[in-house]
Amino acid sequence: MKTWGGRYRKKMARELEALGNSINFDRRLFREDIRANRAYAGELRRQGHLDEDEFSLIDDGLAKLTDVFESELELPDEDIHTAIERLLLESIGDVASKLPMGRSRNDLSATGVRLYLASAIEETVGAVRHLQEILIDSAESYRDTLLPGYTHVRRGQPVVFAQYLLAYFWPLVRDNKRLASARKRALELPLGAGALAGNPFGIDRRALARELQFLDVAPNSIDAVSARDYQLEFLASCSILGTHLSRMAEDLILWSTAEFDFVALDESFTTGSSLMPQKQNPDGLELIRGKSGRLVGNFVSLVTTVKGLPTGYQRDLQEDKELLFDSVDTLQVILPVMAGTIATLTVHQEAMSAALSSDLLATDLADYLVMKGVPFRDAHRIVGEVLAHAASEGIDPKELGPGALRRFSDHFGDDVGNVWDPRLSVNRRASEGGVAAEAISVQLEQARRALER
Amino acid sequence: MKTWGGRYRKKMARELEALGNSINFDRRLFREDIRANRAYAGELRRQGHLDEDEFSLIDDGLAKLTDVFESELELPDEDIHTAIERLLLESIGDVASKLPMGRSRNDLSATGVRLYLASAIEETVGAVRHLQEILIDSAESYRDTLLPGYTHVRRGQPVVFAQYLLAYFWPLVRDNKRLASARKRALELPLGAGALAGNPFGIDRRALARELQFLDVAPNSIDAVSARDYQLEFLASCSILGTHLSRMAEDLILWSTAEFDFVALDESFTTGSSLMPQKQNPDGLELIRGKSGRLVGNFVSLVTTVKGLPTGYQRDLQEDKELLFDSVDTLQVILPVMAGTIATLTVHQEAMSAALSSDLLATDLADYLVMKGVPFRDAHRIVGEVLAHAASEGIDPKELGPGALRRFSDHFGDDVGNVWDPRLSVNRRASEGGVAAEAISVQLEQARRALER
Amino acid sequence: MKTWGGRYRKKMARELEALGNSINFDRRLFREDIRANRAYAGELRRQGHLDEDEFSLIDDGLAKLTDVFESELELPDEDIHTAIERLLLESIGDVASKLPMGRSRNDLSATGVRLYLASAIEETVGAVRHLQEILIDSAESYRDTLLPGYTHVRRGQPVVFAQYLLAYFWPLVRDNKRLASARKRALELPLGAGALAGNPFGIDRRALARELQFLDVAPNSIDAVSARDYQLEFLASCSILGTHLSRMAEDLILWSTAEFDFVALDESFTTGSSLMPQKQNPDGLELIRGKSGRLVGNFVSLVTTVKGLPTGYQRDLQEDKELLFDSVDTLQVILPVMAGTIATLTVHQEAMSAALSSDLLATDLADYLVMKGVPFRDAHRIVGEVLAHAASEGIDPKELGPGALRRFSDHFGDDVGNVWDPRLSVNRRASEGGVAAEAISVQLEQARRALER
Amino acid sequence: MKTWGGRYRKKMARELEALGNSINFDRRLFREDIRANRAYAGELRRQGHLDEDEFSLIDDGLAKLTDVFESELELPDEDIHTAIERLLLESIGDVASKLPMGRSRNDLSATGVRLYLASAIEETVGAVRHLQEILIDSAESYRDTLLPGYTHVRRGQPVVFAQYLLAYFWPLVRDNKRLASARKRALELPLGAGALAGNPFGIDRRALARELQFLDVAPNSIDAVSARDYQLEFLASCSILGTHLSRMAEDLILWSTAEFDFVALDESFTTGSSLMPQKQNPDGLELIRGKSGRLVGNFVSLVTTVKGLPTGYQRDLQEDKELLFDSVDTLQVILPVMAGTIATLTVHQEAMSAALSSDLLATDLADYLVMKGVPFRDAHRIVGEVLAHAASEGIDPKELGPGALRRFSDHFGDDVGNVWDPRLSVNRRASEGGVAAEAISVQLEQARRALER
Repeated sequence: MKTWGGRYRKKMARELEALGNSINFDRRLFREDIRANRAYAGELRRQGHLDEDEFSLIDDGLAKLTDVFESELELPDEDIHTAIERLLLESIGDVASKLPMGRSRNDLSATGVRLYLASAIEETVGAVRHLQEILIDSAESYRDTLLPGYTHVRRGQPVVFAQYLLAYFWPLVRDNKRLASARKRALELPLGAGALAGNPFGIDRRALARELQFLDVAPNSIDAVSARDYQLEFLASCSILGTHLSRMAEDLILWSTAEFDFVALDESFTTGSSLMPQKQNPDGLELIRGKSGRLVGNFVSLVTTVKGLPTGYQRDLQEDKELLFDSVDTLQVILPVMAGTIATLTVHQEAMSAALSSDLLATDLADYLVMKGVPFRDAHRIVGEVLAHAASEGIDPKELGPGALRRFSDHFGDDVGNVWDPRLSVNRRASEGGVAAEAISVQLEQARRALER
Repeated sequence: MKTWGGRYRKKMARELEALGNSINFDRRLFREDIRANRAYAGELRRQGHLDEDEFSLIDDGLAKLTDVFESELELPDEDIHTAIERLLLESIGDVASKLPMGRSRNDLSATGVRLYLASAIEETVGAVRHLQEILIDSAESYRDTLLPGYTHVRRGQPVVFAQYLLAYFWPLVRDNKRLASARKRALELPLGAGALAGNPFGIDRRALARELQFLDVAPNSIDAVSARDYQLEFLASCSILGTHLSRMAEDLILWSTAEFDFVALDESFTTGSSLMPQKQNPDGLELIRGKSGRLVGNFVSLVTTVKGLPTGYQRDLQEDKELLFDSVDTLQVILPVMAGTIATLTVHQEAMSAALSSDLLATDLADYLVMKGVPFRDAHRIVGEVLAHAASEGIDPKELGPGALRRFSDHFGDDVGNVWDPRLSVNRRASEGGVAAEAISVQLEQARRALER
Repeated sequence: MKTWGGRYRKKMARELEALGNSINFDRRLFREDIRANRAYAGELRRQGHLDEDEFSLIDDGLAKLTDVFESELELPDEDIHTAIERLLLESIGDVASKLPMGRSRNDLSATGVRLYLASAIEETVGAVRHLQEILIDSAESYRDTLLPGYTHVRRGQPVVFAQYLLAYFWPLVRDNKRLASARKRALELPLGAGALAGNPFGIDRRALARELQFLDVAPNSIDAVSARDYQLEFLASCSILGTHLSRMAEDLILWSTAEFDFVALDESFTTGSSLMPQKQNPDGLELIRGKSGRLVGNFVSLVTTVKGLPTGYQRDLQEDKELLFDSVDTLQVILPVMAGTIATLTVHQEAMSAALSSDLLATDLADYLVMKGVPFRDAHRIVGEVLAHAASEGIDPKELGPGALRRFSDHFGDDVGNVWDPRLSVNRRASEGGVAAEAISVQLEQARRALER
Repeated sequence: MKTWGGRYRKKMARELEALGNSINFDRRLFREDIRANRAYAGELRRQGHLDEDEFSLIDDGLAKLTDVFESELELPDEDIHTAIERLLLESIGDVASKLPMGRSRNDLSATGVRLYLASAIEETVGAVRHLQEILIDSAESYRDTLLPGYTHVRRGQPVVFAQYLLAYFWPLVRDNKRLASARKRALELPLGAGALAGNPFGIDRRALARELQFLDVAPNSIDAVSARDYQLEFLASCSILGTHLSRMAEDLILWSTAEFDFVALDESFTTGSSLMPQKQNPDGLELIRGKSGRLVGNFVSLVTTVKGLPTGYQRDLQEDKELLFDSVDTLQVILPVMAGTIATLTVHQEAMSAALSSDLLATDLADYLVMKGVPFRDAHRIVGEVLAHAASEGIDPKELGPGALRRFSDHFGDDVGNVWDPRLSVNRRASEGGVAAEAISVQLEQARRALER
């Protein structure tokens, strides 16, 4: 069965069937398609195009199709819409042929995809929130754990481990906001747009929207069947989320090396080598990092396709579904691995602490001079010279006492030794967002509130 | 002058200078950098780190630098921050060296870029709105102008030209919402994050945010210097906007061909050929379409770079600015050309009308049968057979009278002739978002309201 | 069974299994993996690490596994290598455990993928050649069929349809050269690189390469397991090929519109609408165009992933396979549809001819003046003025006789009427590569030779 | 002056000028454009369209324009072709107007870009070769320097540093082959294709090709002005080269951290922090890594644009030049920094050696058992258990003597101690491409030969 073909004299070319049939992937939308069909049947009844009996037959028939899709392995149809139309016809007979009036696969398919995407986004947002909760809990545990903060993969200044965990938390807040925006944009109802010109049977699209829990009605029938920007927005948001997961993975891969040894990944989130018996490889993190490249590719695939089209529905747009599914599925497998990795992480506090070499306090030494009245740029230069001197002498800068330091500046006082305590350094950075204990408390509170919203 | 180097014994390699100096492009941010510097100086005064005289010297000195940047062609500095520090030092002397205390190029640079982006987005949003106003005005003029609506670049059903113009309008509403979200995300203040660990001089970042008109304070010092997701969100939004402009351009390029001849582009928005004297090429539209590819590339450049990094500032992130500038500039030159093209368009109503061949009413013929009680799927098949018959006979389907039609179905009545009037077809599609006159009126009203927001 | 785990005390996390198991897609490589295993077993025998009986057991056991993979639906293993190791062990017992000596999944997997890719490229090249043959045959048929040549989707000058068909042929020649280069690059044998450091059992990698029909041995063990550039080269070549198919599709979509009507697509390569009974949509061409976006995305996915890595094998690289498979499969379904579409195309010679409006001869009119001694730039301007005059008078330029034309230039002679014959215009363009009959003959000959190579 | 406009009555819109004028970037092609013009003038003389005097005037006039372009800052023209035509006219008068006969900006511009690209590729290939020479020299120096080889950023097996340096060398061999292929593809002459239909003035395109040192003549006039695949091939090859430079940079960034400390970057290839006086950041390497993202974006920009077009010249294609220039320029600044970084690298042999913990010999321990007759998979499991035991006892596995080991397998002999010598481990991997001293010698010889080609 086809939903078209009255004017056709030839069969579809085998090559085109191989290329065009979408049932293998769009069958995934059967629930959404059935739901949209039932809502449409209800509206046809309200407008008098179906009587009560016809509606009941159709509605019950549709309701029963769910089981068929859950059990049947192979479907011979072009696409999910055709499959549903065929199965309904086989199940309830001719009355099924009334249902597609005023409707096209264009508006029906767009309705199903939007419904799917809205709920897929809800699940994704939930998986992100689960990761965020784990990050907050973990940050709570490591609010006093000192380690070097890095820029350029070089030790910069002492920070606390909670600050890193929270540095992972906040981007996810923004990611979830972006996902929520994409969801909102998805929830404009296309049903009732027909193929492109609207519905001639007096359908109340607001009623359909309410029934299907859309937030609004797509205001223009051509735009309704043509638009894919809400999908691009979703795919772009996934790419951006992917960069955050990838960067997080990169940090943890580095920190769990023998060379850094700041953390140990739980065995259950690593795998071994088929050749080298000693290996415990961070495969979970690597796959997270690797799959974030794919999220970018999915966006590029769709944006390249959409960019090349005129307005209106073109069959090229069928490409949207596999890309959406792939980004949704990718996030559904990588987010839990990140959550599990963080939740089972062992933190080596002593190794972190041992890495706090005294050169990390160089800024504090300059700041010390500033507090004694030296302009910062001069203080920075003076400290640079102190460090160069220490390096050329092969000594640790903190071994230089006030006397030695005064060769570089009169402003070094006898109290200069306090500079070398990393905990004092951390606690000096007390402005909002900084690493001082009190600033971390404030931030944790903000993070918890952000999650409650 | 450099802002670093006390511990260095060697000069920077010539090759690295050639690669790393950013002054040629980041000088564009001089206003934002000066503004951030002045706000920071104010906060240093409020916290007692500068006295009144020092502050006045610095603040006046900074204010005067604007002229320098507007006039001077060449700057020998590494970057804009170094240039400002050097020029201030040359202008007001040693007190200038106090200003950089507690601050790094990481947080300063991020502050400048965010300020720049927020105002660049405002301008972009304004240019989009200008185009939207022209679309609404134009739609108002062509609310009764019939033409074929296309899917698959094939005539589908009769629509009015206003429906196309409004189909361009609504995606731009969504684009501006996306841009506004990106702007909101940009306006989280990084200043006070230092290089990565926060500010040790008691800076009130909320006060700085108010002064610089940021909407919020970046809540984590590491995230503040590391994040580029707000830029990716902007670049992705630009790519998506680009697809809309490209599709619009594609329509107009087609419609202005000799073959379609639905519209004529104003001469002033076309160019000729150096070889073929007769040519009037739609270069403006083609460049819009072409440059939308570049908007995608800019997103990919940055997302690829960011995805490969660990957390924290890395110098790779310096790549962000040229990409942002390029997308901003691209939109600033293509949006006005689209606006001008639409504003000066000549519409060939007769050619549009002449293209309304009777096969476009095939759906209406099927709908006619539906209203007579034939289930839609059967009606669709019957009409397909009617069309196949007409084609094989070489006659226009509308020449088939009720008698001839009844050979295909008893339900064709003597009133079937009304089906062939495209204006009636259009006006039957009266559900919200459809092409009927009343639906267009509602939609125009919705569009005007959307623009007022 | 796992190929690792002696030092492990915990089971793999369920989340990591869901993310990391690759058997669902890499089982597709079972033939290549078996082939590589057999070759390796042979080399172990030659080096004395397996005796004749052991080798026979292993070799026969491996040979029999093909059937298992072709029949069994579900495999419980991590990946194809583990599945083969397990099945061999179950089939021939402990001797199977000797096979993996000196070998890692890194070098084995890379060997399998390279074998696969080399033969997938051969198939792709063959499908491209099939399309090329159809283009040449078609070009032969339409060497005298005049139509407008387009630039900017605007009629430019008269050409013959063969010139377009050959304009599709030559890019495919270059595509096949690129694919062949990628194949050559793929055929460097990684086997014997181990995990990264090479093989300690005296394996002769040249012998392995000969056995497996590789062209060379990868010269560095680290590069051998780390390199993915040959895949990127393939994916990029596919993207580029995709642009050619997409542009070809775009032409045919336009030319088969009611407005152009230059060609008709065979019914069997179009599909209808579920709503609009009259529709014959060029779905095959649209899907070709749409899927070419996906080819770009696959390249971007992999290049983004690879770009973010250090040297050496990282698990991120497991992402390569699905991307390769997808690009291979995509080309395998779109190339035959393009071939079928061209092979069944109906060409409307009269419609093409009717589109040769006289303004297409404007360049010939300028060339006429050049032959009379007018410098070209002046001739171009004069003809422009002639056209503007004709347009303002509402007459066809070819209606202007010598007398009327001489008001614009004395050089117009009484023989100017010949200019308006499009066939003469075409035949004047006789330099190599031009549209004159003789140049087309030369080009057809070149094309046939190119295909023989 | 414009090269078109005779039929125009209106001036170009200001907005279109802002969008379309390309002189700011395409002036960079002035040498190539002049060269193509001179060759074309020569051919016009040979075909009798210019007499000797006219040719001399034009040829001399063109030759003198070089100086103008090198000195003049601002040009008021649309593009480089118009600028040359205008300047020639101003310099030699009316005879200049003869030159553009039979020629369009389409074929002229394509000729210039191809000439430019061919020589830009030569320079790029040269810069890559320079880097390769440095890598070979460096590999020569470190052929005996032991360090851990990494997979998954985890220590795998002992290798020599030369193996890493050569692992950087070979991908560059493939990159240069790809670049050379792209250059070959670029060197098909489009000149003589006109706007799309060929040349009507008897031009001998083979003679032009010889004169301009093209390798062949583009065989089809439409393809000649439409094709951009050679550019895409170049941009893709640059992206792939970028991944190699990025991965190399990533290694060196890691190895030069305090935590690895395997190498030290020369001060002259690092920069400091404006805040943290101790910092020496690997900015050069980071910028190499960052800019490789941009190379990907440039490919995507062009491929997205080209994919969306029909065949033939469209103005969208003007976007090609800036993208080519950007990728060329990017490589011209990053390749020398990589070369300089490697040339000035300090290698910390002791730190490398110290990292050779005994777990890296686990594979050798398994191989030992294999040589004693234990099947590898069993040997792998036994060694895994040995390592787990050692870990749980907190002892280094190499402290386990034969007796202790025999608790895990009878096959451990008294000679097992030799396993723990990393140099012996390395030298066991003697198959081609391995890390043994003799294999490295062979490979160095192969590398030198590859460079000579």
